[in-house]
Amino acid sequence: MDRERFERQIRFILELDREKNILRQTHLSGHGRRENDAEHAWHLAAMTFLLSEYSNQTVDVAKTMLMVLLHDVVEIDAGDSYAYDPEAQKSAPERERKAAERLYGLLPEDQGTYLKALWEEFEKGESPEAKFAHVMDNFQPMLLNHSNGGQDWSSRGVCRSQVEERNRHTGEGSEEIWAYMKEIVEQNIQKGSLKDE
Amino acid sequence: MDRERFERQIRFILELDREKNILRQTHLSGHGRRENDAEHAWHLAAMTFLLSEYSNQTVDVAKTMLMVLLHDVVEIDAGDSYAYDPEAQKSAPERERKAAERLYGLLPEDQGTYLKALWEEFEKGESPEAKFAHVMDNFQPMLLNHSNGGQDWSSRGVCRSQVEERNRHTGEGSEEIWAYMKEIVEQNIQKGSLKDE
Repeated sequence: MDRERFERQIRFILELDREKNILRQTHLSGHGRRENDAEHAWHLAAMTFLLSEYSNQTVDVAKTMLMVLLHDVVEIDAGDSYAYDPEAQKSAPERERKAAERLYGLLPEDQGTYLKALWEEFEKGESPEAKFAHVMDNFQPMLLNHSNGGQDWSSRGVCRSQVEERNRHTGEGSEEIWAYMKEIVEQNIQKGSLKDE
Repeated sequence: MDRERFERQIRFILELDREKNILRQTHLSGHGRRENDAEHAWHLAAMTFLLSEYSNQTVDVAKTMLMVLLHDVVEIDAGDSYAYDPEAQKSAPERERKAAERLYGLLPEDQGTYLKALWEEFEKGESPEAKFAHVMDNFQPMLLNHSNGGQDWSSRGVCRSQVEERNRHTGEGSEEIWAYMKEIVEQNIQKGSLKDE
């Protein structure tokens, strides 16, 4: 064992632990507490395995799982930027870029370079894996929210156009899942938990 | 899309959400709150990717990641059985077997059969992937506990022989990580957070 290499890996692994304290705006099903980044990423990885058959293009499932597992690591430094907060969304890229430098820099160079590139691939959203990872990242909170009667939308006054804007590329990753998500949107419009404007 | 198949997958995915409410005895680093099963599994999957080079035998990394991601799904029904609680450990296998039947039975048959078999492979602990998954499952809480000065041991009066018994197969998965874990054990004996008997 190269002890210095191992200790860099351990340092990063302990840093990852902090992702469990980063809260999202989504609530757990059963009208539970707010979800954290780590358990969200875990859920996406399991979903990727189960649902990859609905990807428009064939994806490397293992690569997509790793991508979603670590897609929010930068939030350890940069914090969660709520999808429907325009100010937070505007400043996020620069904060996240700095976070990626520091966090992936903790690792041995080969692993840090690989994982930083995988995160950048996710952010770009162009590869089949990145497109499908974004489908998972948007579908999972919608599923939880729908199971709670749409409360994450109604409590913040979210409207249809915001959901559609956020999901403008979802159909590029999976037409089939996007069609199902549009049904959820319609049901929440009918119920009044999502504003129709 | 086979709608019935998709809805079975969604049913399982929503059931998985409950794993975020199952608390373990380990505390997050920084003397944090107790960890839950979902974030524990997320941490193990990331660790598996980063540390698989230390496995005694070559492992299929993607398979091992999926194995650790879902190794605690049965606890949704069966609850967490604390490693050093002999009564809970004794009754766990039967409770977990029933849980696996019900939970994996929610899925389409191909996926349910595959994932149930993967969980059984983990439980048996015989394949290279299962051996390494158990190394991760034992190393991760030890790392968090050590980062907190060994409080998860000292608060429960855990002794060296219990840790050694729990890790009796760890060296079969990774001699190198087990050697490092033994250093952690010695340091905690020295500090008095782990009883030397």
